[in-house]
Amino acid sequence: MTVIRPFQAKDWPALWPILKATFETGDTYAYSPQSTEAQIRHAWIDVPQATYVATSDGGEILGTYVLKPNQPGLGSHVCNCGYVVSSAARGRGLASELCIHSQAEAGRLGYRAMQFNLVVSTNDVAVRLWKKLGFEIVGTLPHAFHHSMLGYVDAYVMYKSLVVA
Amino acid sequence: MTVIRPFQAKDWPALWPILKATFETGDTYAYSPQSTEAQIRHAWIDVPQATYVATSDGGEILGTYVLKPNQPGLGSHVCNCGYVVSSAARGRGLASELCIHSQAEAGRLGYRAMQFNLVVSTNDVAVRLWKKLGFEIVGTLPHAFHHSMLGYVDAYVMYKSLVVA
Repeated sequence: MTVIRPFQAKDWPALWPILKATFETGDTYAYSPQSTEAQIRHAWIDVPQATYVATSDGGEILGTYVLKPNQPGLGSHVCNCGYVVSSAARGRGLASELCIHSQAEAGRLGYRAMQFNLVVSTNDVAVRLWKKLGFEIVGTLPHAFHHSMLGYVDAYVMYKSLVVA
Repeated sequence: MTVIRPFQAKDWPALWPILKATFETGDTYAYSPQSTEAQIRHAWIDVPQATYVATSDGGEILGTYVLKPNQPGLGSHVCNCGYVVSSAARGRGLASELCIHSQAEAGRLGYRAMQFNLVVSTNDVAVRLWKKLGFEIVGTLPHAFHHSMLGYVDAYVMYKSLVVA
């Protein structure tokens, strides 16, 4: 069974290779494929309000997500999350589990909505999954992502309210 | 004649009251109306790639803007700007001058597009001006801004390409 729990400092040596492998492909996240370990540690651990990891029964790290306010002050009731699943754990619904967990955490922390700022339009699997989990494409940013293989491609802004209107 | 030039440390004592008065209204920017001087100095001077001020003939500060990449790495060809005009200088087209200047600077710095992430939908004057200057509303964020008078209101994502497609 997968357990999702807060990141602890001891997790980093196992987490970094998973993040590195994801960002290196240059087709999913804006972080430069050449990002250093220190840069990614800052972005994934220091900057967010909270970082979580998903582990297997044996304690192996399978995935991770971050949660933070998307804007300061008068926009801070909307959170932003980012998810990464290890290549070994793909295809088992873990991204979905992480996103469902993050929505519950966001609600618990008092957020009213969740926003993804830069969903790469060519990342069909992600777009389909976020839609299935209740997110809508609320904006399209023309050529806002520099895809490592495809060049400049559109990115979507996706949004989900976490409160009853 | 108005001069637009890079911010210098000596400008801060005159700039801070202009920023403070703008953010205090809670109807335009996400920065909390209760933000401290240190917080705003960090956000307006330290974080951006560049900060500019507009001055009168006599050297009085009339307005300011910031310019920075909107995302890291593979999204860093899109910049983000924010503009503030002093209450004394409103109604003379200075916001327009600042935005035109920022588009030229962004082009010079190699950016391919400019994005505003949170244009308050009830700020008609701003929305109309950005449209006039070539920006399009590419997204609507439901209830993403907590307006000091109106409560939760929508915000727009606005975008302008700076290159010929």
